[in-house]
Amino acid sequence: RAERVAHFEQDVWSIFTPLALECQAVNLGQGFMNFPPPDFVIEAAREAVLRNECNQYSHPKGRPRLRNALAKSYSPLFGRTLDPEHEIVVTAGANEGIFSIFAGYLDQGSEVILMEPFFDQYISNITMNGGVPVYCPIRPKGDTSKDMSANEWKIDIKELESKITPQSKIIVLNTPHNPIGKVFSREELEEIGALAEKHNLLIISDEVYDRLYFDCKDHQRIATLKGFWERTITVGSGGKTFGTTGWRVGWMIGPKALVEPALAAHTRVVFCVNSPLQEAIAVGFEQADERGFFGTQISSYEHKREKLLAVFRELGLPCTIPEGSYFILVNTDKIQEIGVCAIPPTEFYSKPNQKLAENFARFAFCKTDETLDAAAERLLKLK
Amino acid sequence: RAERVAHFEQDVWSIFTPLALECQAVNLGQGFMNFPPPDFVIEAAREAVLRNECNQYSHPKGRPRLRNALAKSYSPLFGRTLDPEHEIVVTAGANEGIFSIFAGYLDQGSEVILMEPFFDQYISNITMNGGVPVYCPIRPKGDTSKDMSANEWKIDIKELESKITPQSKIIVLNTPHNPIGKVFSREELEEIGALAEKHNLLIISDEVYDRLYFDCKDHQRIATLKGFWERTITVGSGGKTFGTTGWRVGWMIGPKALVEPALAAHTRVVFCVNSPLQEAIAVGFEQADERGFFGTQISSYEHKREKLLAVFRELGLPCTIPEGSYFILVNTDKIQEIGVCAIPPTEFYSKPNQKLAENFARFAFCKTDETLDAAAERLLKLK
Ligand SMILES: CSCCC(=O)C(=O)O
Ligand SMILES: CSCCC(=O)C(=O)O
Repeated sequence: RAERVAHFEQDVWSIFTPLALECQAVNLGQGFMNFPPPDFVIEAAREAVLRNECNQYSHPKGRPRLRNALAKSYSPLFGRTLDPEHEIVVTAGANEGIFSIFAGYLDQGSEVILMEPFFDQYISNITMNGGVPVYCPIRPKGDTSKDMSANEWKIDIKELESKITPQSKIIVLNTPHNPIGKVFSREELEEIGALAEKHNLLIISDEVYDRLYFDCKDHQRIATLKGFWERTITVGSGGKTFGTTGWRVGWMIGPKALVEPALAAHTRVVFCVNSPLQEAIAVGFEQADERGFFGTQISSYEHKREKLLAVFRELGLPCTIPEGSYFILVNTDKIQEIGVCAIPPTEFYSKPNQKLAENFARFAFCKTDETLDAAAERLLKLK
Repeated sequence: RAERVAHFEQDVWSIFTPLALECQAVNLGQGFMNFPPPDFVIEAAREAVLRNECNQYSHPKGRPRLRNALAKSYSPLFGRTLDPEHEIVVTAGANEGIFSIFAGYLDQGSEVILMEPFFDQYISNITMNGGVPVYCPIRPKGDTSKDMSANEWKIDIKELESKITPQSKIIVLNTPHNPIGKVFSREELEEIGALAEKHNLLIISDEVYDRLYFDCKDHQRIATLKGFWERTITVGSGGKTFGTTGWRVGWMIGPKALVEPALAAHTRVVFCVNSPLQEAIAVGFEQADERGFFGTQISSYEHKREKLLAVFRELGLPCTIPEGSYFILVNTDKIQEIGVCAIPPTEFYSKPNQKLAENFARFAFCKTDETLDAAAERLLKLK
């Protein structure tokens, strides 16, 4: 067993999902949809496997059709004409994309600045590639005994700067944020980007929930601000965008020179991404606008968010109201053995800070109304 | 750019496949099928995406249905009852499986014994994980100016032993072999296994072509011989088995304790493998026997092999006659600019030994009869 995997314990996802099943809990744990992806995307997958070229290897960069569709969909959002040949790489889920960026950039002892809490897989993706995670807290600035907006969770930019050393190579931003649901504001992004610029850091902007933001607030992208494009790789997820978490189609977007080392790693790690589901995600993007898909999806998630928030309000349990993503952080130590599975966000904190997570539980609302109702029924027994 | 990717040049596959297309060459280069996978496997994929649980995350180990189907299909071949819960892990193609085994076992400076020629991705998979490849040649012992069987390519077991040092951790075996087409004999496997045992090496047995062997010779598995199970991880490929190279479904089989470090790495590298195509490969295995699929497939490949060999015989170009896999090594420096794309096996040799490859070209025969006929027509112009 190599040193790089010596300290890995079982991942939280492989523990909680089977546990929820076993206990017949209503599962608001792992963020996967228990409702189907849109019909037009499913139909595209069914059609793709009938064309043999969609059953054979793709180019390591990704299928041209998907790269073109991504360029077309994302160019207006990035405020620039993205080059599908050199600025987009399709990855085996956002996870492998992030792994491959770290593999392409980190040397032994390179430091990566993370904001805490963070998506747990970052840590192993960094340490497996010789890197050292360095943590800067995102703290709830409001009164955690009341409901508060996710935007009341803040980083202290001076504190963030104090974490930067000559070994720092990368800063990871995650917006909309898992598990907080925070969508970083333009001002916050400008401050973070300015720091990255000052200290010459690569920015990984993990924007896998970029199509899921609420209250019609825009999702800001750091790559679109003041020259930060030049130092940013933005990571996206077909699974989050189209409700297909099991299809393992993600992507990275950034300038050619920045994406190249990650592509070099990606080509060796997985060679290429599964072809037919790339094709289906391409169709998803090609048709999303004319079908008004993203707007409809946001409305549906807004409704689900309200449904679950209403339960916690009735219980008097203070929540962080997410601006994006499909998670609600609830301030409680009471959710136990009531048959609803949530994720304790301890895994999203470094060991010394896990006490900060102790009073929180993370609930996913990417579930059918029936599931949310069933969860409500069980939760309301806490009353 | 990290040191681990600093010396990567473009991979041979991303060069030759687009080049063949551009030059309108008949493409016998990269080993992908230009004919469709069997209908029953396609149908299973079409059906899987209609069930939402097949569109969401799988367990990192792989879907239970596929692990069960693999256990059922492989148990008789391994001469033991494989435990689908602990002895099988589904990977994002055999490539990611091999990467994750190296990630799970190699520390900085660990040595890996390879037989040369070798599949090119091994090298980057090793070096990215801090390992050092060490090469032992497989030499053509017959007269290379005449046709010879792939079994006339031999390793010298003393030479192999001389490559082992206290840093050696792993020996990689590839049978049926790409690009030679050699199926290692039981005696050879016993010698290799005995060495691994003597020096306490892990064996990775890359058997991705295990369902493609000719002349009804059996494919021997090192994991089934004399206690070697205890030190062997066998790697397999859905893409090679069912003609779906773009589905990225592979697996590893081995004792729980051996597979665990690789599973730990795999879980972090890709989290899980795409769900619907796992389901379809499961159906493939469930139905293969009753449909006589593997036998029919072997006959079809035997026919393709004969077709292509006949061309080289007519040209008087000496070939290595493959016992397995879908590649023919041809001894020639004449295949240039005749509009048939082959792969120069230089990439399958370490830098100092690339001259050994200079007189060879590798032709893939996993192609339709029409394609093989078109290649024949062009090749016969060399006459
Ligand atoms: C790697 S599975 C994690 C799923 C997810 O995105 C989440 O629940 O946070
Ligand atoms: C990584 S693509 C290589 C395809 C293949 O197996 C071969 O042609 O050797």
